[in-house]
Amino acid sequence: MSFFITFEGADGCGKTTQLNMVADFLNSINVKNIKTREPGETPLGAKLREILLHYDGPVADECEAFLYLADRAQHVETFIKPELEKGNVVLCDRYVDSNIAYQGYGRGISIDDLKYLNNIATNSFKPDLTIVFDVDSNVAQERVGANKDRLEQEGLEFHKKIRNGYLEMAKAEPERIKVVDANGSIEEVFEQTKKIILELLNK
Amino acid sequence: MSFFITFEGADGCGKTTQLNMVADFLNSINVKNIKTREPGETPLGAKLREILLHYDGPVADECEAFLYLADRAQHVETFIKPELEKGNVVLCDRYVDSNIAYQGYGRGISIDDLKYLNNIATNSFKPDLTIVFDVDSNVAQERVGANKDRLEQEGLEFHKKIRNGYLEMAKAEPERIKVVDANGSIEEVFEQTKKIILELLNK
Repeated sequence: MSFFITFEGADGCGKTTQLNMVADFLNSINVKNIKTREPGETPLGAKLREILLHYDGPVADECEAFLYLADRAQHVETFIKPELEKGNVVLCDRYVDSNIAYQGYGRGISIDDLKYLNNIATNSFKPDLTIVFDVDSNVAQERVGANKDRLEQEGLEFHKKIRNGYLEMAKAEPERIKVVDANGSIEEVFEQTKKIILELLNK
Repeated sequence: MSFFITFEGADGCGKTTQLNMVADFLNSINVKNIKTREPGETPLGAKLREILLHYDGPVADECEAFLYLADRAQHVETFIKPELEKGNVVLCDRYVDSNIAYQGYGRGISIDDLKYLNNIATNSFKPDLTIVFDVDSNVAQERVGANKDRLEQEGLEFHKKIRNGYLEMAKAEPERIKVVDANGSIEEVFEQTKKIILELLNK
């Protein structure tokens, strides 16, 4: 049993908490699994992440975009696929859909270009299941609270664009992308998440 | 007088030696020029070059391609264009054509994809002149000798694919790409090179 499952949503949606709960749940029913995230989970990715976060000169926009794509290509080829071949369920915190939601719907970069670039980076490798944790933008902003990183400081309008982007993507690919109402308590959200995961495992 | 001239060919073709001789020649006739190379002439590029040449784990093909593109985007924007604007002839050791030859013809990545990606990375910025130093693959391998980096260890078949790739590209763009027979002595090769350079300067 090996599935590639991605966890998506705007900052503050609770996806990382849910990913950890899914891992614990899979362990409890003896389903081998491994957690990962983008960017930067491979040794080479860590070097790129170091450059992206700490380089102190000007970085051309296209340079930055290509470094993220390089990281993703390496992640798919040297981590995600080998783990799936070992029979693991791979639980991944953000993947291509984040790129489309943030840079495409959020920043207005051509969604067709982003899809094209990501198809090259990943050889069009898609998740078996993507769960979008959908939360009212005001709730998400409250959850993120004071510890905001650069993207999280963008404000309410930016987050609404991202949320709407995810909902549009889910409408376009209802088989792969499932939307969970993430406004409730952690336990309420996990009940919905668990149901979706079990449907996949029982297929 | 500012021209962007690139030097291309399989490893061991002698292009770097010829580039240095061209720089000396231009200096001798008082033509301002600057030498550069890909990958890695910008400070950020140097970090990427370190990864590309010396990373000792597996590197996914698409990751490698995107790292070269990131480096190139940075190189064009923060080095090549500013030097041309200062009135320098820019002599560049490898550029887009290396990417097409190595990743496309060599590794089998779609050449259309690579062209599309390079157009994004460079904003479709092309050299005024490209010189391909064409050398028999056996001769090239002998010249490279024992000090091989990761790419140079790929073997004879890989190098033949690259050589053929360059020759096909030259056939498709005869105005921009000039082929020099690089099997002879350094001096013999430089006579051909100098002739091509003088033709450009006298245009």
